Amino acid sequence: VDYARYFSAESRSMRPNPIRALSSVINRPGVISFAGGVPSPETFPADDIAEIAAALIRERSAATLQYQPTRGNRDLLEYVAAFMQERGATRVSLENLVVTTGAQQALDVIARNLLDPGDVAAVAIPSYIGGIAALQNAQARLVGVREESDGIDMAAFEETLRRQQNVGAPVKLAYVISNFQNPSGVTLSDVKRDIILDLAARYDFLIIEDDPYGELYFDAPPPPSIFSRDRTGRVVYVGSFSKTLAPGLRVGWLAAPAPLAARFELCMETAVLCPGVLDQAIVAECCRRGLAADRLPRLREFYGVRRRAMLDALAESADPQLRWTQPDGGLFVWVDGPPAIDAEAELTRLVESGVAYIPGRPFCIDDSGKNAFRLAFSKESPDRIREGVQTLLHELSRSV
Amino acid sequence: VDYARYFSAESRSMRPNPIRALSSVINRPGVISFAGGVPSPETFPADDIAEIAAALIRERSAATLQYQPTRGNRDLLEYVAAFMQERGATRVSLENLVVTTGAQQALDVIARNLLDPGDVAAVAIPSYIGGIAALQNAQARLVGVREESDGIDMAAFEETLRRQQNVGAPVKLAYVISNFQNPSGVTLSDVKRDIILDLAARYDFLIIEDDPYGELYFDAPPPPSIFSRDRTGRVVYVGSFSKTLAPGLRVGWLAAPAPLAARFELCMETAVLCPGVLDQAIVAECCRRGLAADRLPRLREFYGVRRRAMLDALAESADPQLRWTQPDGGLFVWVDGPPAIDAEAELTRLVESGVAYIPGRPFCIDDSGKNAFRLAFSKESPDRIREGVQTLLHELSRSV
Repeated sequence: VDYARYFSAESRSMRPNPIRALSSVINRPGVISFAGGVPSPETFPADDIAEIAAALIRERSAATLQYQPTRGNRDLLEYVAAFMQERGATRVSLENLVVTTGAQQALDVIARNLLDPGDVAAVAIPSYIGGIAALQNAQARLVGVREESDGIDMAAFEETLRRQQNVGAPVKLAYVISNFQNPSGVTLSDVKRDIILDLAARYDFLIIEDDPYGELYFDAPPPPSIFSRDRTGRVVYVGSFSKTLAPGLRVGWLAAPAPLAARFELCMETAVLCPGVLDQAIVAECCRRGLAADRLPRLREFYGVRRRAMLDALAESADPQLRWTQPDGGLFVWVDGPPAIDAEAELTRLVESGVAYIPGRPFCIDDSGKNAFRLAFSKESPDRIREGVQTLLHELSRSV
Repeated sequence: VDYARYFSAESRSMRPNPIRALSSVINRPGVISFAGGVPSPETFPADDIAEIAAALIRERSAATLQYQPTRGNRDLLEYVAAFMQERGATRVSLENLVVTTGAQQALDVIARNLLDPGDVAAVAIPSYIGGIAALQNAQARLVGVREESDGIDMAAFEETLRRQQNVGAPVKLAYVISNFQNPSGVTLSDVKRDIILDLAARYDFLIIEDDPYGELYFDAPPPPSIFSRDRTGRVVYVGSFSKTLAPGLRVGWLAAPAPLAARFELCMETAVLCPGVLDQAIVAECCRRGLAADRLPRLREFYGVRRRAMLDALAESADPQLRWTQPDGGLFVWVDGPPAIDAEAELTRLVESGVAYIPGRPFCIDDSGKNAFRLAFSKESPDRIREGVQTLLHELSRSV
């Protein structure tokens, strides 16, 4: 059977994740890895979760092992509503919320429901590969806007919006990671959060605000979310417990104007019936006990020390052509190497020298980022981070 | 904002699940419920799962709380492969398997990848609402084939296949629940499993074989799956642990020819990154300990007694117009009432009289089933089943 004949247009638009394709290279044992953008297992509250899981299953098997409503665990929804209210989204209520199988499923569901083939969606350059993929699977046409040190270049964005409107292909959706962006670590400034809302109203588009890292700030909390400022109902917020509790539990959520949330719930019903019921119950109990909130200061400290180690080691570079971002939170630093460098071509050699990273190009829909490196500081100890950055800098200086 | 303007064609094709819309009526406390098609919580091995979950999280937090490969937990995949091999799918291997967030996600992923808007998919009348919804979300055009007591009417099906071919809209995909079908309880006979494969080759379509109930047989095991007979690579099999362990864990899988499985994996990557990691580890450990297999005889006994109670109570009906199926397994009996009966219109009155069910029409894509009832015998005790059926029969005899 020639299966390609059977594949839908959506299926044919799916592209393998370039990071997963690199996994055989980057996961070499012994290497200092800045590659995987995943939280450190050292931070998982395993003993607490073990005890909570056992107690919940024994005492409330119907709430942990049976099918549950599609929207999600009622207690969890209440905690998420309170969490968002505390952070300025004062009018959020249960009719705005839907629990998803990690934030990734929220992105997929939103894209499926809001984008027809050929619709135009805007993304930052660089941006999160899984978010880009969700838009691509919906067969959107993507337009890119460069990032500055305080987030998307709004002048360039407005030019893009105007140009797309003029050619009769207006931007319908903008995908934004507001805090400590993956892959750049950049945060959208307070003023730009207001500007993008204003642009959304004037150019008639909706915004996906993806915020998996917002609680992982190292200095001050980031500015209030775009969602919390929205008075026009144009923002869908995506949150996650993957970086603050544990990603294996696969619990994320979306917050949206009620008519959109109802539509996304409908999609979720056919997509999975309901997200993992035990996972949701565990996360709700972590919230009830205060565990989810109490651990955040330690988590910020944990990743903050690693961020500092990485930035300090980078600052020792003598190469004036090297530039890097200054993340105030999250898991990532983005490094632009000398223009002559090809980060993909160098990967195998650098892994052999003992340090792994993700090349920048897969994050850039305009195929830029050839000389860029995404460095995750989440996995390695501060000492290994220093050693790894030194190796990286040394090898890069040799290759130019 | 007028959100309808933003909805994609896929989104506009989504329909609310009619069963969920009935939930305020059917979930009345105290009522004898034949409505929910869900396993009985009495059967959940809660203590075992509690102990397993706690031990796994404590001892292997990286395998339970961290991101994992999209395809699924390696041990779980091995157990699923062995399970399918024992049941005749001797050539199944890991390259054929993908774990999903319950069987429902498998149906959604398959439909997204194999159906373009307007493609023709064939379903049984009646058929599972969640399966129909997955095909509808992919914007397929559905054609229906009536069921007989041994499954789909193959003569009528071939006529449909020929007619669709003649009008230039050939059937691309057939959706079949081979064992103890939801909602009818009917099993596709051995010979019809060969016939449908032959038809698939001659009329060039693929088959989704959905099999959540196959292990819940009360007499002899059902015939080997369509998938296990397939020598042409035209069948995608969908399995689930929801009915044999617990649905809250949301662990299902699909088995497909390797090129299709690779495509479905790609879709899963963007849909959820990976299914619930803790859930998968728990199910794998239930398999390793033999718990998943050892409990099946007791489970068959448990539901078999309830099936018998329901069939015996129905047999006491004096109404010669009443007909019902004779399920050899699963959770459901399908009752055709007198033609004058409208099961939807009667629902509120019957719930007030103390018995709940699901009306037949939502399962029938041709809007037939007006006088039909889906009765689930999974929830109530044998005594309550007898009482509920007596009430149902009594009330039906009054209403004609």
